[in-house]
Amino acid sequence: MHAEFVAVDWGTTHRRVFHVGAGGMVLAQRSDDRGVLAIGSGGGDFAGEIAALRAQTGDVPLLLAGMIGSTRGWTEVPYVAAPAGLAAIVGGIAHMPDNVFIVPGVMVDDDKRPDVMRGEEVQILGAHAMGKVPDGLVCLPGTHTKWAEISLGEIMRFRTVMTGDILAALKAGSILSDLLQNEPADDAVFLEGVDHALDMPDLNAELFSVRARVVTRRMTPADAASRISGLLIGADVRIGLGRERADVVTIIGAADLCQRFALALQRAGRESFCIDGDQAFLAGAVAIMAALAGAPR
Amino acid sequence: MHAEFVAVDWGTTHRRVFHVGAGGMVLAQRSDDRGVLAIGSGGGDFAGEIAALRAQTGDVPLLLAGMIGSTRGWTEVPYVAAPAGLAAIVGGIAHMPDNVFIVPGVMVDDDKRPDVMRGEEVQILGAHAMGKVPDGLVCLPGTHTKWAEISLGEIMRFRTVMTGDILAALKAGSILSDLLQNEPADDAVFLEGVDHALDMPDLNAELFSVRARVVTRRMTPADAASRISGLLIGADVRIGLGRERADVVTIIGAADLCQRFALALQRAGRESFCIDGDQAFLAGAVAIMAALAGAPR
Repeated sequence: MHAEFVAVDWGTTHRRVFHVGAGGMVLAQRSDDRGVLAIGSGGGDFAGEIAALRAQTGDVPLLLAGMIGSTRGWTEVPYVAAPAGLAAIVGGIAHMPDNVFIVPGVMVDDDKRPDVMRGEEVQILGAHAMGKVPDGLVCLPGTHTKWAEISLGEIMRFRTVMTGDILAALKAGSILSDLLQNEPADDAVFLEGVDHALDMPDLNAELFSVRARVVTRRMTPADAASRISGLLIGADVRIGLGRERADVVTIIGAADLCQRFALALQRAGRESFCIDGDQAFLAGAVAIMAALAGAPR
Repeated sequence: MHAEFVAVDWGTTHRRVFHVGAGGMVLAQRSDDRGVLAIGSGGGDFAGEIAALRAQTGDVPLLLAGMIGSTRGWTEVPYVAAPAGLAAIVGGIAHMPDNVFIVPGVMVDDDKRPDVMRGEEVQILGAHAMGKVPDGLVCLPGTHTKWAEISLGEIMRFRTVMTGDILAALKAGSILSDLLQNEPADDAVFLEGVDHALDMPDLNAELFSVRARVVTRRMTPADAASRISGLLIGADVRIGLGRERADVVTIIGAADLCQRFALALQRAGRESFCIDGDQAFLAGAVAIMAALAGAPR
């Protein structure tokens, strides 16, 4: 059990705030663009931000997750090494003054394939607490897509594919910029891109080929964004599945992005089901607060 | 033979101008940032730019190559379909008023793998005219690296890998931006990235892993740019070589970039030799002007 609290998923560019009642019910929820970069890396006035939050929510415990615990955030909370489950993650929480708790990230402590996450671990713990993550592979699509292997509720290892970040960079400034002003809209064209990328490891050539298709009138500019999305997500899924034999993949995130990954996974012969990212975060925050309440100090 | 002329390699962001004497000797050479985007796509004052060039060089024939012949340039000159050699490319030249000639680009007219180039065809023809391109594979590294198969001086087919464009986009805005403010400086770290990318088709995960290496203190921020360069160029070479059995690859371009690609090709078990890009362009322009002078109108 836990008392009333506020949980914040505090990312690089955005922040989601959940005010949770003692029974686990959400009293209020909002999101804004006060990510850590907006507040100012390192030297930013995070204490002022916390005070502003408290002014709205009252003097309740505050659970912070995400980039807020990174070198770019308020204070650096060391990563917990995988395998890591609820107990290890709660054990790594930084106890700050005034009932503020910062969740640690998780790292894969492997010289050949090191990796890090901050924030997604709460969603994974939450999906498990909801009874919705069987052992196997979990995918959290996004700016930095995470593919995590779960066993008995522990994050065994994971890998990041920077799909959304690369898409945004290509949109901001590249030969594909103007084509990416459109939104992906055609599932058939999207799936052709997925199929290609699942099969062929030549992404940086196929991306240019989208421009060539448009210039040689083989593709309309409107379809280009769908193919680019398909190529990037197809490559993401190919890398994420790796040598995994998982028949079923759990996808955690926003509905529209989950659906695109579900389509791509289907083409790769995998079943999948989707869990809402906010719900998973909330369930994870509740599980962490309950464990904190029961844990020895 | 040809009379005195001016050749311009007129790209998207830059322009290189060569004033060539009747014997093929360069009378003057300069480069500036008056690329087609600076002048204004489509509706830009290209006639004014031409007049400004002529004011400096005198009233001699003007040979223009590159993006100047694209939809973003002065006037669209249709691509010549590969296979294409000197005769086909000269046959596709647009004859404009006042002794201005615009070289067409070359396209791979293939629904499965369409591709386009504008400007590189002059360098390839030039390298061949210099007697320096045996049949086989030619690599022109850069913003959009070209890998072309040459047979008897004809461009048979080619493929583009958008390596430099993606690197610039990642540098301008991504999780890797701050790490890319450094220049690649360490060849050993560069080659580790090359080796990985030649072997493993997981580029968009390995790129994020560079950040993870830095965050977990496995790599210094100063080394990160070398590894990222190695990963991108290694992937470029892997895609460019494809199923090619070519033992020797001709690289055409600027010395520093050619050297990085030569190192990567060496790791892939290929010999290579480098041809300066300006010299190749110049030789190609001379060959085209000679053919134009001898060709029926």
